[in-house]
Amino acid sequence: MQKPTLPKGTRDFGPEQMRNRLFIFDTIRQTFKRFGFQPLETPSLENLSTLTGKYGDEGDQLLFKILNSGDFAADLTETDLQAGPKKMTPKIAEKGLRYDLTVPFARYVVMNRNTLTMPFRRYQMQPVWRADRPQKGRYREFYQCDADVVGTDSLLCEAEIILMIHEVFRNLGITNFTVKINNRKILAGIAEVIGVPGEEATLSVAIDKLDKIGKEKVLDELRARGFSETALYNLAPLFDFLNQEADLVLDQLQTWLSASDVARRGLVELTETLQLVQQYGLADSRVEIDPTLARGLSYYTGAIFEVKANDVSIGSVSGGGRYDNLTGAFGMPGLSGVGISFGVDRIYDVMAELNLFPAGAGQGTLVLIAPFDAEARRVSLPLLNQLRAAQVASELYPDLVKVKKMLDYANDKNIPYVVLIGSDEVQTGQLTLKNMNTGTQQKLLAEEIAALVKKETMAQAID
Amino acid sequence: MQKPTLPKGTRDFGPEQMRNRLFIFDTIRQTFKRFGFQPLETPSLENLSTLTGKYGDEGDQLLFKILNSGDFAADLTETDLQAGPKKMTPKIAEKGLRYDLTVPFARYVVMNRNTLTMPFRRYQMQPVWRADRPQKGRYREFYQCDADVVGTDSLLCEAEIILMIHEVFRNLGITNFTVKINNRKILAGIAEVIGVPGEEATLSVAIDKLDKIGKEKVLDELRARGFSETALYNLAPLFDFLNQEADLVLDQLQTWLSASDVARRGLVELTETLQLVQQYGLADSRVEIDPTLARGLSYYTGAIFEVKANDVSIGSVSGGGRYDNLTGAFGMPGLSGVGISFGVDRIYDVMAELNLFPAGAGQGTLVLIAPFDAEARRVSLPLLNQLRAAQVASELYPDLVKVKKMLDYANDKNIPYVVLIGSDEVQTGQLTLKNMNTGTQQKLLAEEIAALVKKETMAQAID
Repeated sequence: MQKPTLPKGTRDFGPEQMRNRLFIFDTIRQTFKRFGFQPLETPSLENLSTLTGKYGDEGDQLLFKILNSGDFAADLTETDLQAGPKKMTPKIAEKGLRYDLTVPFARYVVMNRNTLTMPFRRYQMQPVWRADRPQKGRYREFYQCDADVVGTDSLLCEAEIILMIHEVFRNLGITNFTVKINNRKILAGIAEVIGVPGEEATLSVAIDKLDKIGKEKVLDELRARGFSETALYNLAPLFDFLNQEADLVLDQLQTWLSASDVARRGLVELTETLQLVQQYGLADSRVEIDPTLARGLSYYTGAIFEVKANDVSIGSVSGGGRYDNLTGAFGMPGLSGVGISFGVDRIYDVMAELNLFPAGAGQGTLVLIAPFDAEARRVSLPLLNQLRAAQVASELYPDLVKVKKMLDYANDKNIPYVVLIGSDEVQTGQLTLKNMNTGTQQKLLAEEIAALVKKETMAQAID
Repeated sequence: MQKPTLPKGTRDFGPEQMRNRLFIFDTIRQTFKRFGFQPLETPSLENLSTLTGKYGDEGDQLLFKILNSGDFAADLTETDLQAGPKKMTPKIAEKGLRYDLTVPFARYVVMNRNTLTMPFRRYQMQPVWRADRPQKGRYREFYQCDADVVGTDSLLCEAEIILMIHEVFRNLGITNFTVKINNRKILAGIAEVIGVPGEEATLSVAIDKLDKIGKEKVLDELRARGFSETALYNLAPLFDFLNQEADLVLDQLQTWLSASDVARRGLVELTETLQLVQQYGLADSRVEIDPTLARGLSYYTGAIFEVKANDVSIGSVSGGGRYDNLTGAFGMPGLSGVGISFGVDRIYDVMAELNLFPAGAGQGTLVLIAPFDAEARRVSLPLLNQLRAAQVASELYPDLVKVKKMLDYANDKNIPYVVLIGSDEVQTGQLTLKNMNTGTQQKLLAEEIAALVKKETMAQAID
């Protein structure tokens, strides 16, 4: 008999983890909703023709591919076998698992272009799959929670993303976080003024690592990538902007990059976005301008966002930006959009490490009814009905066992209240309510129990 | 440029569908929670060794298999190619997609046997995948919502499932439904008394089709399967039980099956279950005893449940039963449990056909702010903040466009309120709130708008 195991890089989420995860999902969903984003779900399976070529060569290799049904190898020849996996795959697999939420969203927009009202604001909270090497904090199946607006280039959307980030993290109880913001046009301007116009992508790959490897190694990498000493000398101001006030950074960037038109446009966008945030009335902004932020650049054309939780050493917990050509790969060019993605798994890790889950979030059953015998069980059933009708999550212990066993069960499951019903209780109608946290007991009528439990647990949730 | 498509048998769920689906998910989840069930999620990917052999030969063929990463064909020979898909698959695929929620649940229980508190009540709401031929109402990716109790054989669990079914459907607004109930022991008893002991599985395959093909064809099928005319003659009473009062059916079954011990045990279980339901205080029970109900029998050993919505011709919307050996395949025998599965996709179809989605369920954004110019937009931003702080889902139209375009946008998105802000409004501070359903307009101060919208929409939700 085999011992069952889980595939590498995947996880089960038991009851307590799930309740805390549901708290995160609910919080993000409520915020998305309040900001006017609409829900969308796409299938886990996509045609490989939809996915392939959208994530670079490395991404293509990390796609999980689904073996065709039926006699998948019927047309396969020995030549195919020898051709290697890249040539063989299309012959035996035509579907793959979703790799992110952005490409399926683009496909959806293109397929529904004639009926969608623009600008289209959608959110999507679903798992994605990547055949990455599993390691701490990196899984092969994980959730993304994305919100995007497409069909407008208004900077109001950038401002709203900044506002939404603040609201999500504050509603989760994460207060010490930083929203880093940059703009691809500024990176393009930097490339111009240091004398390597158009090379901002190469530049970004290196400076993206500043946090991890430090300034000297970044310069070494740029040298290795062919940047001249003059270019590196001109780049020096970049390393002085970190951790300063936004206004100061904007001023200094304006001076440094004044010769670049594209940088000027990027700075205007950044300034306007921050003004809109201010006019909205955001209290205690956590925004920081970081001209080294690139997030791999990939398809970003304007704003770039990244969020870090400051009290833990976990990478970014959220990121996004503006792209001008989301749907171009599917034959619908020129559609601009901007989006943000929240990484639930990392947010969970942050909250667990900082002990931020509210007491009520993990609460399952509130009341266990523990009857001592069959007669007591008959009294229990209508009480169970009353408690549930009053929205109090309740259970009746299903077997007739010793009281200790029922109390152990309540303890193991963190059930805060137990109603004990023996022959005394049946005769008098006065039931014993035991508070498992304090150990105190009191006698109550059945119809008083729901009200008391609700009152006490609500008071506790507010504490 | 390719035109993107969806894989066969899969679907996108746009905003309106999603809001209605979320209403169903939330309703089921709240009910599960109130009944003391705890959330569990398992990975979409399972080892094929976990899945294979659990669903019969047909099921094995319907599993979606994941191609191994990297050079999956490295060790493949021409002999493997010729051996056919069944022999070749294990060499190139070691993982598959979840086929149902029961087998992953069993795997979870076995892997966590030392830490789980029994009885263990869990619910699970996740998609499953089957490489079935797509057809109306049958998809390759669909959701299951399961609740199970394992580690007890108390009939209270059966009773609770009946209660939970009533609550879920009533909370959804589906009032005309039937909960059919049977017991495998009764089917075994029927096989005994008609003279084919142990043949209840064969018997069930045929009588399961009674609804679809009628009595005569069922008898023909039994003849073809080798049942004697005497056996069929003895079976006659079975067809007289349908659509009668539960008590009457129990009486008649007791008489008919009095010679069978196992039937008697089944009837006692059924009677006790219904008594528990009654003691709980279920109003207007929709339970019907149906001794022909088998649901393929598969692993059921006691109670069998099925739910039908009566006003539409859609198959069963929910089903389940008791099994005595959930985890036996994973080396942990003798664990009894009972469960129920709600089919969200069919429930959605029923509710859509009967127009049962409550008006509020599909509501997205409540207020669109429509500024006429840049100056008006400055006034809009703090108002947007106020509305959201008051939990009113709100948007600000992001571009400066003609008023008509903004009103069209609100209409297309079914946004019920628009705040119009022109230069008059900026000067006087009196903003125009337009009710898009009635067409009426009124002048209000910014701080009055949230309260009014909340009051009106709540009144409407109660209507």
